[in-house]
Amino acid sequence: MKLSAVIGLLAAVPSAFAIWPIPQTLEQGNSNTQAYWVNINVQGYSGNIVNNAVNRYRDIINRENFLAPVDYKRGILKPNGSLQGLTVSVESTDETLGIDTDESYTLDVPVDGQAMLNAKTPYGALRGLETFSQLISTNGNAKVIANTPVHIKDAPVYTHRGLLFDSARNYYSLASIYRTLDAMSYNKMNVFHWHIVDAQSWPVESRTFPDLQKNGAYSAQQTYSYNDVNNVIAYAKERGIRVIPEFDVPGHTYIVGLAKPDIMSCLNVQPNWADEAAEPPSGQLNIANPDSIDFANKIVDEYTKLFTDQVYHLGGDEVNRNCWNNDPTIQTYLATHPGESVESLLANFYTQTHNHLETTGKTAYTWEETLFHSNYVPSTNNTILQVWIDQTSVQKAVALGYRVVSSSSDAYYLDCGHGAWLPNFDGNSWCDPFKTWMHIYNYDVAANITDAGQKKLILGTEVAAWSEQIDETVIDPRLWPRASAMAETAWSGKTASDGHVRTTAEVASRLHEQRFRMVGRGINAEPMQPLWCARNPGSCNLPPS
Amino acid sequence: MKLSAVIGLLAAVPSAFAIWPIPQTLEQGNSNTQAYWVNINVQGYSGNIVNNAVNRYRDIINRENFLAPVDYKRGILKPNGSLQGLTVSVESTDETLGIDTDESYTLDVPVDGQAMLNAKTPYGALRGLETFSQLISTNGNAKVIANTPVHIKDAPVYTHRGLLFDSARNYYSLASIYRTLDAMSYNKMNVFHWHIVDAQSWPVESRTFPDLQKNGAYSAQQTYSYNDVNNVIAYAKERGIRVIPEFDVPGHTYIVGLAKPDIMSCLNVQPNWADEAAEPPSGQLNIANPDSIDFANKIVDEYTKLFTDQVYHLGGDEVNRNCWNNDPTIQTYLATHPGESVESLLANFYTQTHNHLETTGKTAYTWEETLFHSNYVPSTNNTILQVWIDQTSVQKAVALGYRVVSSSSDAYYLDCGHGAWLPNFDGNSWCDPFKTWMHIYNYDVAANITDAGQKKLILGTEVAAWSEQIDETVIDPRLWPRASAMAETAWSGKTASDGHVRTTAEVASRLHEQRFRMVGRGINAEPMQPLWCARNPGSCNLPPS
Repeated sequence: MKLSAVIGLLAAVPSAFAIWPIPQTLEQGNSNTQAYWVNINVQGYSGNIVNNAVNRYRDIINRENFLAPVDYKRGILKPNGSLQGLTVSVESTDETLGIDTDESYTLDVPVDGQAMLNAKTPYGALRGLETFSQLISTNGNAKVIANTPVHIKDAPVYTHRGLLFDSARNYYSLASIYRTLDAMSYNKMNVFHWHIVDAQSWPVESRTFPDLQKNGAYSAQQTYSYNDVNNVIAYAKERGIRVIPEFDVPGHTYIVGLAKPDIMSCLNVQPNWADEAAEPPSGQLNIANPDSIDFANKIVDEYTKLFTDQVYHLGGDEVNRNCWNNDPTIQTYLATHPGESVESLLANFYTQTHNHLETTGKTAYTWEETLFHSNYVPSTNNTILQVWIDQTSVQKAVALGYRVVSSSSDAYYLDCGHGAWLPNFDGNSWCDPFKTWMHIYNYDVAANITDAGQKKLILGTEVAAWSEQIDETVIDPRLWPRASAMAETAWSGKTASDGHVRTTAEVASRLHEQRFRMVGRGINAEPMQPLWCARNPGSCNLPPS
Repeated sequence: MKLSAVIGLLAAVPSAFAIWPIPQTLEQGNSNTQAYWVNINVQGYSGNIVNNAVNRYRDIINRENFLAPVDYKRGILKPNGSLQGLTVSVESTDETLGIDTDESYTLDVPVDGQAMLNAKTPYGALRGLETFSQLISTNGNAKVIANTPVHIKDAPVYTHRGLLFDSARNYYSLASIYRTLDAMSYNKMNVFHWHIVDAQSWPVESRTFPDLQKNGAYSAQQTYSYNDVNNVIAYAKERGIRVIPEFDVPGHTYIVGLAKPDIMSCLNVQPNWADEAAEPPSGQLNIANPDSIDFANKIVDEYTKLFTDQVYHLGGDEVNRNCWNNDPTIQTYLATHPGESVESLLANFYTQTHNHLETTGKTAYTWEETLFHSNYVPSTNNTILQVWIDQTSVQKAVALGYRVVSSSSDAYYLDCGHGAWLPNFDGNSWCDPFKTWMHIYNYDVAANITDAGQKKLILGTEVAAWSEQIDETVIDPRLWPRASAMAETAWSGKTASDGHVRTTAEVASRLHEQRFRMVGRGINAEPMQPLWCARNPGSCNLPPS
């Protein structure tokens, strides 16, 4: 290593303390810029998304009174200049938000005078505003941006930086959803995968089948109306977050049986539910019944309209063959239809529902089993795969030309490590142990993929907060700061600009800072360590062996 | 099994749904007693503890609007009578609270008329008030006590039902301590073991050595003044909770070194802290230095006065011999004192400090290592042992005639299962996996102890919330409802009145109810399962194999 590189690396350390996820390039000086009330203005017309974000961040910045844990003994920094304000300039006023949205920005903060944020789209401006807010710390009765001048040029490595949010096992209030979207925006995450229904409850309004919600919501209060969903989508969009709904078929559908028992198989088998489902209550759409496909397609029709994102998740995980093999109506059907089988029925179900989704103009998002654990082959490679079981499915998907998102359960299942939840069993859960932030940070979605074209098919990553043991009392600490760990690897990538793979040891202090900042903003993110460790970076590392 | 016993068991099931921990005996009828605003009055003079508790429970009961998860479809119950109010009668006005305090009570609720709570002491009255509050559920615009008449006769099996609360690794506000004490009282827990200082911080005021707090608190705000401590003790006492402080010596004392470096060994050894301490930062009192013993005894003098409980915890866990073996001053001392050794120095340290504690009239509480991993032998068997490492230490202690409390780490360490917290290591922690409520409930402190006299020496149990990865953002869900699981086994014992050992399957619904009741009272207890499971008892059990 050349001496200059060493010096460069050392000099870069303080800068790394400021921003999570870390920008692609960050240059800074040795001055300090004082600020009091921070004014943000927009250059030219930028539309509501940017204007509202400017108001929001003006409030956050001027309310925030933040000092990083490592700076606990920092005295008042002596300013070399004063911040006049921040000007935000956006090239395009197009507020379309989707897979291809440009989120890049540049941010310049001089030692003295006006800071400048430039972005191509409103959403790039949002990301830059978040970065700008993280540059600021408290300085006596004023605020300061240390290490000015600052020049940042930034853009995400992956377009999909998601969170799977399960409002079916347990219900979440709108307030807790909004708070989660806020926290996502603080980490530059941009996909809220709303796993809105599952076997246990159907909280969302259906105008096609009103009984789904009427019979399937936990209560009349524990529901999401069309208006609620529209509000969530709007709130998310204001923060640059897409909302992708999942209406899982044909498995995980016990709750449908409370409204439409005629189209179901293996409805709530007890006590041997484990023979026919991954978890209680059992129940799957009867794939030999044409009414099931009709039902699934009508669900697609209804919710592709309500949810505005280009992508729609069709589920397709954890179907249980026994459920169908043991169903007398399916046995009868197969006896009278030689050549057919449960496998052919399932492939047909996927073909019918995926083709139908295509007619709506939407893009199918589906769990890996749909393609890799069934005989279904999509007619195009437009389908996006979500991997959770098998890390090699990522490689397989891109080798076949499919776009892929990884929610690898051995890294990204934030509910795991909490033990089993069956009252008569005191052992572990299938996905123990707990996924620490270090473990999450070390995961590499692109592992063993070298071909550049294949790499491009990796859209990104998604942490999952399956809610068997989570509800709004604990959602904040279960998500944060562990989801932040994923967020950085998805935004910034695994490697620093000098080519080395970032280590958890080198990013720990910065993540502490992000955690404390989130707590200050009202997010109950859990502590990573004793405060003593946060204040003394490196002093709580595992010793060299 | 006789048919009558079967019927008795079946009839008993609904009653079990109401109260956590379950009373020793509970008889009830088939009527329903309506209540509106619930009046509670005291018969005769009972003192402030009872009068304040009456006011508190009147507020809780009349504010509470509770229905158990299993009752979600319950219609309005038709009342057969009306509750006129509750009369509380207490034999003794003595408000002394200690190991021997009688917590028994009887509670009678007629179908119609005045309910009656009788107790020998103010603290028995508190337990009965909590039970009474749990009998009540919402009934349309009114409240109801179902299954009247109710006759309850109750008393705890164990006198020590504790929680170890660590305010040193991370700081807790007084509000979060008060909230924790509230939750403890909802579960009839009665010992707040305040692990108030440790290596990482010294939040509590010291008037003998002011620099301990000045240099050792995380900040001037993250402190407990004498006044704060007095308030916590008073708040706890009002809820029938003893506060036992722990000032751990000679290990876990790095923070003392910020005030008194001259009496320390192995102060913050880096990066190889693991050679000399269980966790960073390393540091132990120098046991060859008489000033260390003097310091430890002055700490005893100061805090046995501030903390009023009869019992005082001297620590004594996880001392590391390398720390002393590698200390040049100790090497010099040993070279000039033939016949002495680190072991003899340590035994002498314990002898001096325990003897000194005895002179204050207090009872020593100490970790198992003090007796079983050192050469120290107390002069009396008045010492209370707290076991965490080795379950056989419980048997060993009672066989030697010592009283014992178990905090067995493989069952009662509520912080475990969260993975390692060293930033450069992405593996598990030493005490993974997570301790589920079922695992905690199944633990038997009296396992393999058959002698009645020895059994009597088991004072009880204590869950521990070591706070390396906990602070006030997450303390509620880390504690509750898992601490409730311990609370029931400590209050009610392991066996029901018919002699069978209670199973987690049979108590799950009742614990769900307790969890939801706590949430309603402002305690962020975590969910045990999907709400669907809470509403459908038995439907989420592991199937019979």
